[in-house]
Amino acid sequence: MNITEAQAEKVLKAAISKAKAIKVPMNIAIMDEGANLKLFYRMDGALLGSADIAIKKAKTSRLFEMNSEKLGELSQPGESLFNVEHSNGGLISFAGGLVLKNKNDTIIGSIGVSGGTVAKDFEVANAGSQALLNNKYNL
Amino acid sequence: MNITEAQAEKVLKAAISKAKAIKVPMNIAIMDEGANLKLFYRMDGALLGSADIAIKKAKTSRLFEMNSEKLGELSQPGESLFNVEHSNGGLISFAGGLVLKNKNDTIIGSIGVSGGTVAKDFEVANAGSQALLNNKYNL
Amino acid sequence: MNITEAQAEKVLKAAISKAKAIKVPMNIAIMDEGANLKLFYRMDGALLGSADIAIKKAKTSRLFEMNSEKLGELSQPGESLFNVEHSNGGLISFAGGLVLKNKNDTIIGSIGVSGGTVAKDFEVANAGSQALLNNKYNL
Amino acid sequence: MNITEAQAEKVLKAAISKAKAIKVPMNIAIMDEGANLKLFYRMDGALLGSADIAIKKAKTSRLFEMNSEKLGELSQPGESLFNVEHSNGGLISFAGGLVLKNKNDTIIGSIGVSGGTVAKDFEVANAGSQALLNNKYNL
Repeated sequence: MNITEAQAEKVLKAAISKAKAIKVPMNIAIMDEGANLKLFYRMDGALLGSADIAIKKAKTSRLFEMNSEKLGELSQPGESLFNVEHSNGGLISFAGGLVLKNKNDTIIGSIGVSGGTVAKDFEVANAGSQALLNNKYNL
Repeated sequence: MNITEAQAEKVLKAAISKAKAIKVPMNIAIMDEGANLKLFYRMDGALLGSADIAIKKAKTSRLFEMNSEKLGELSQPGESLFNVEHSNGGLISFAGGLVLKNKNDTIIGSIGVSGGTVAKDFEVANAGSQALLNNKYNL
Repeated sequence: MNITEAQAEKVLKAAISKAKAIKVPMNIAIMDEGANLKLFYRMDGALLGSADIAIKKAKTSRLFEMNSEKLGELSQPGESLFNVEHSNGGLISFAGGLVLKNKNDTIIGSIGVSGGTVAKDFEVANAGSQALLNNKYNL
Repeated sequence: MNITEAQAEKVLKAAISKAKAIKVPMNIAIMDEGANLKLFYRMDGALLGSADIAIKKAKTSRLFEMNSEKLGELSQPGESLFNVEHSNGGLISFAGGLVLKNKNDTIIGSIGVSGGTVAKDFEVANAGSQALLNNKYNL
């Protein structure tokens, strides 16, 4: 099971819609089941430096099958995964990265969003991921 | 003058339309005036290894303000730019990378396409770049 | 709007002048609007290891459109952007990086300075950035 | 013996003067005796992609103590150093890189120029290197 064009576009549209609603231009990255980039979109006015962060958030979530900020809890000084961000060519371990699942609860990819506060990044990423679950037809 | 969301989407749509017409799933990368990624799209079934090639073709065209294959002519063994591909974190110097210009002939970004033969990659990239010139309203 | 030779030289001269006044040999990097290197200068006696830091400070400021140390406040352990320095090929998040704006308050590039204490690095970077605002003719 | 600020500025001025005379905007990189960047200058209108090439030409000349194109002769298919460009983080082995010597014939650094044809790149680099030899006072 791997994310399709149609699914990735659905995720992207929901994320952009949320970003516009909260008025924060975002970088949005969508990866497939193999942690390879499927779709990337930099909204007009989004921070240049957030493009790489969006991609790394998506990578982090897919590689570890968790919200990116969950890894961040484990990578604080003194915690078990301190500085895990050095692995895999660089990870980003704060909020804004989520796995993408289909209605059968199977991971088919991931999304990473960056451009605002981490709370807003999460909000937009979450809107994207929810889009795959709320549609009538399971793409 | 920098490429906008609306322009990048127009380029992408024209490229995807051509790719579907010639029945070759492609990776399509669009960069802005500063050679930063603006939009990336991997069509279903497109070769995984061509994603990085599409991105590097777009980079090559923007950085040297020419079709990617023009650089390739100059980088053959014995030619003046032999092995220039080692610069700038890796270049791709065969066809499929083009600058994107607006109607005032100003470079606003670039497109790189990879997934088929270089002739087909070029055809799809060209369809994308033409989209900015042929529309009634100069975005 | 992108930084010109003339603007970059004006920034450099003001920075060097300040560095000499406070007697600290500095590395000074100036980037353009697209976060590409425009000018780099290593003063005699400046620390070798500070050259890369100066370049990364300039990159950090341009990519995130803020003073480099502002990012550093957010990247402390437990803070929202912990370990953001792993993105974008490496960032530097302590003082000495500033965006460069013209008199219309438009970002046209950035400056990064390294070689002394962070307070002195900031002082020299600030002298550079102010040079674009204080001249009679808006370059 | 290492290149000084004053020497690097002298080299840069001569190179810029030649670039303006032949009307080709250039990227100019100057390295020190230890192959570390001392000075970098991107003239207005110079190709973005040539910045890295200028730096790598300077590095190539300093590391191998020869004109960059001499290494290129040895790195052709079938020759003894085929693909040596993969070493040292990437080399550039066509013309435009020269060592910088003082009047005692001691290597004190190197210069790399890129932006035009290799013949013009060489011409500008050569103007820079000659500047250290032709002045009345041996800086």
